Amino acid sequence: MAVIGIDPGTAITGYGIVEEERDGSLKALAYGVVETLSDREMPSRLLTLHDELSKILLLHQPDSAAVEKLFFQRNVRTALTVGQARGVVLLALEERALQIGEYTPLEVKQAVTGYGGADKRQVQQMVKTLLELDEIPKPDDAADALAIAICHLYRTKYKQMVDES
Amino acid sequence: MAVIGIDPGTAITGYGIVEEERDGSLKALAYGVVETLSDREMPSRLLTLHDELSKILLLHQPDSAAVEKLFFQRNVRTALTVGQARGVVLLALEERALQIGEYTPLEVKQAVTGYGGADKRQVQQMVKTLLELDEIPKPDDAADALAIAICHLYRTKYKQMVDES
Repeated sequence: MAVIGIDPGTAITGYGIVEEERDGSLKALAYGVVETLSDREMPSRLLTLHDELSKILLLHQPDSAAVEKLFFQRNVRTALTVGQARGVVLLALEERALQIGEYTPLEVKQAVTGYGGADKRQVQQMVKTLLELDEIPKPDDAADALAIAICHLYRTKYKQMVDES
Repeated sequence: MAVIGIDPGTAITGYGIVEEERDGSLKALAYGVVETLSDREMPSRLLTLHDELSKILLLHQPDSAAVEKLFFQRNVRTALTVGQARGVVLLALEERALQIGEYTPLEVKQAVTGYGGADKRQVQQMVKTLLELDEIPKPDDAADALAIAICHLYRTKYKQMVDES
């Protein structure tokens, strides 16, 4: 199963596609970011985000998706802006009928490092180790997106084990 | 020129299309709401909003669009949710290459009633009068959307007058 993890933002949206191999190991199929130009109007930036993400979904055909659940934005204005990007991301995923998991930053940390108090760097280091990459994925948004995808794979696996037991 | 005004929300999005006649009078071409079911998942609701709004745009072919500018949501969680709906609305408008005006609630009140301290009921009453309707449009979200469209028409006209003088 291949999962696309997404870290939505208006200026930069990270994505990372992770597949679980038959032996249970994880492999990064692709990762990167969709960036939009800050001198463009918001509707134009949202259209770029939607269309670029749709191309990525078409190219990599993930089986399901995971997006960070956001409740604790710094302020109302930030929440509104991130909300707009997040709405467009959820739309693009729903247009391809992908099942979408939503996880809090704490759930992502716990799933990836086993420890909710892990810092950003520790999470990134674990992403590198789990995916057997030579270095930590850049930029941070792509590394975060890979962590969300890993979280979804682990949570799905755990849920299956519980359901089967 | 026909303008579509939109009042975005996840549960209910109001729209109203207003045309300026040659004699300067205003006419409501259509108004109503797009509703989504609260028992559906958010991505599904956003897809409904996007697709229904796209149908409305295709049917009525407005020349431009106006959306409320939102900064003062009650709380961060509301802002995030409204932001998601707003992002999808802006996307649908941009997909049809519509110019989009954004106005604060205060600007809408001032444009429609001439008075920034007007209450909701006074704005709705003015919408009814200006559009020569038999009664105040229902629900509130549709009346609000018509007010936003009227604001855009007035502001565009005023801007033209200033540019030409």
